[in-house]
Amino acid sequence: MIKEIKAQDLNTEKFITKKVNEIRAAVGSGMAINALSGGVDSSVVTMLGHRALGNRLRTVFIQNGLMREGEPKRVTELFRKLGVNVEIIDAHREFLEALKGISDPEQKREAITQTFYKKVFGRIVLESDAKCLLQGTILTDVDETVAGIKRQHNVFAQLGIDPMKAFGYHIIEPLIQLRKDGVRIAGKELGLPEEVFNRIPFPGPALAARIIGEVTEEKLDMVRKATEIVEKLLADSGAFQYMAILHDDRVTGMRGGKRDFGHQIEVRCWDSLDAREAKPTRLSFEVLEELAASILDEVEGVVSVTYNIATKPPSTIEAV
Amino acid sequence: MIKEIKAQDLNTEKFITKKVNEIRAAVGSGMAINALSGGVDSSVVTMLGHRALGNRLRTVFIQNGLMREGEPKRVTELFRKLGVNVEIIDAHREFLEALKGISDPEQKREAITQTFYKKVFGRIVLESDAKCLLQGTILTDVDETVAGIKRQHNVFAQLGIDPMKAFGYHIIEPLIQLRKDGVRIAGKELGLPEEVFNRIPFPGPALAARIIGEVTEEKLDMVRKATEIVEKLLADSGAFQYMAILHDDRVTGMRGGKRDFGHQIEVRCWDSLDAREAKPTRLSFEVLEELAASILDEVEGVVSVTYNIATKPPSTIEAV
Repeated sequence: MIKEIKAQDLNTEKFITKKVNEIRAAVGSGMAINALSGGVDSSVVTMLGHRALGNRLRTVFIQNGLMREGEPKRVTELFRKLGVNVEIIDAHREFLEALKGISDPEQKREAITQTFYKKVFGRIVLESDAKCLLQGTILTDVDETVAGIKRQHNVFAQLGIDPMKAFGYHIIEPLIQLRKDGVRIAGKELGLPEEVFNRIPFPGPALAARIIGEVTEEKLDMVRKATEIVEKLLADSGAFQYMAILHDDRVTGMRGGKRDFGHQIEVRCWDSLDAREAKPTRLSFEVLEELAASILDEVEGVVSVTYNIATKPPSTIEAV
Repeated sequence: MIKEIKAQDLNTEKFITKKVNEIRAAVGSGMAINALSGGVDSSVVTMLGHRALGNRLRTVFIQNGLMREGEPKRVTELFRKLGVNVEIIDAHREFLEALKGISDPEQKREAITQTFYKKVFGRIVLESDAKCLLQGTILTDVDETVAGIKRQHNVFAQLGIDPMKAFGYHIIEPLIQLRKDGVRIAGKELGLPEEVFNRIPFPGPALAARIIGEVTEEKLDMVRKATEIVEKLLADSGAFQYMAILHDDRVTGMRGGKRDFGHQIEVRCWDSLDAREAKPTRLSFEVLEELAASILDEVEGVVSVTYNIATKPPSTIEAV
């Protein structure tokens, strides 16, 4: 039974000191490793690990080719400014290969998870000198794993390995007593900038979750460009979350006076407190028309743009 | 060379008298036949033919199963009130059979056209005693056929038959010198009610043009229901045209607390003068939310609703 620390009860300085000491004790004079995604949980773990171990923590950022425009550079630059060296592992070919021919949403997620854990990160961990692995598991992940909503975040369980028995590996999960709000407080104290907390939620399978049907490099380029436009134009919307979705259906359009079957981008922008229920944001038509014009102008192959007007439920936040 | 009669130059009474006399002269003491769709052109031809021939005109309404809710009944009732008997030919099985397995928009249109002309109406004409066929061809149809935009409306050309040579059939096209505005004026003079002119444009392939991908009875039921809701809620919008489109893509939704891959309906509502250029109508969010709620509530299997925000061009008015 994990003992929860509620955000309002969190003594941040004391918590950080305790976790830094625990990490030092567990790692001893060896090396530790962690994967940074740029999300708040893995960012906070990176800062704690760095404070505890300095250069004895190897932090990798796995470029899966499914990310937003400029993401690897953005994340590594951000951590470089904080004195943390992050190693980019380019594995986008492996992910694209794994996604080939798959249209089913569940199978897409599975292909990405398996490629991450079994192939790419699994290989890095096994080839490394690290005896400890730092993970950003939070209490909500544990709850959701128990409830069967989310998959287990434990890398070795994914690999089918009991790390202690097999290798004497330790898994360290310094955030496991916290929820998201507690993690944010700790992150602020550790010097992480606003942009780490303020970015809108982004799904684990990244842009692969924003493509209906098979994921290809061409489609990733289209949805990446559309995502950049949507995130830029809706940054000041005050919305809970916003996104661009590339449809698989083709619709009729006209280019240069000729019929042209093209792609459709769906824009979603949600008002929500906690993602359990959500309503479409009442954007002005000036903004909606600017979104459509920019996407039609800048994303080659797109002839149609829609705005989602359904509520959650019965819709979900993401389409895939 | 067909001599155009512009709406402003139309002497309506004189035009009608002339066409009635021409039809009488051509048909002599025999029978004539025509197909009524409920659109303005075929409605005006029906009234002209009825005035000229009375019961010697056989008017058929071909139920292709692709129509809006209540359409055959609505059209036949309307003409019954005008003293015109319209015979409904139920051919929906033949059309559904012809559409089976076809996803390509062009092939769908072709299947509907071929079924109409070669199978259903062709059969009725050949089996009838009629020596004359009345057609609602207008000058714009001729122009568009010459330009290659639209297909030729001449039934016998469709059948690959020169009617004069083969059967001594006449084709009578009383509206061929007019454009739409002139046809409307003639229709009003002939006693056709407002609703014949005021209905928003509806495509030839009917609801088959509102389904992306294969047309099935189940999908027709869904899009028919959604069309009814959209046409009811947007009747007072003042828009040029509005429609519901059923997508082929499945999106994630939730029903009864469980994940459920469902359908998406796209609503389009256009502001336009002449359909050449169009902008999405700036509907209020009250209306958009009511549209979404009604569709999600009343159309089984739908978990998501969008509103089109693209302009024409590069979009087209219809999606298929």
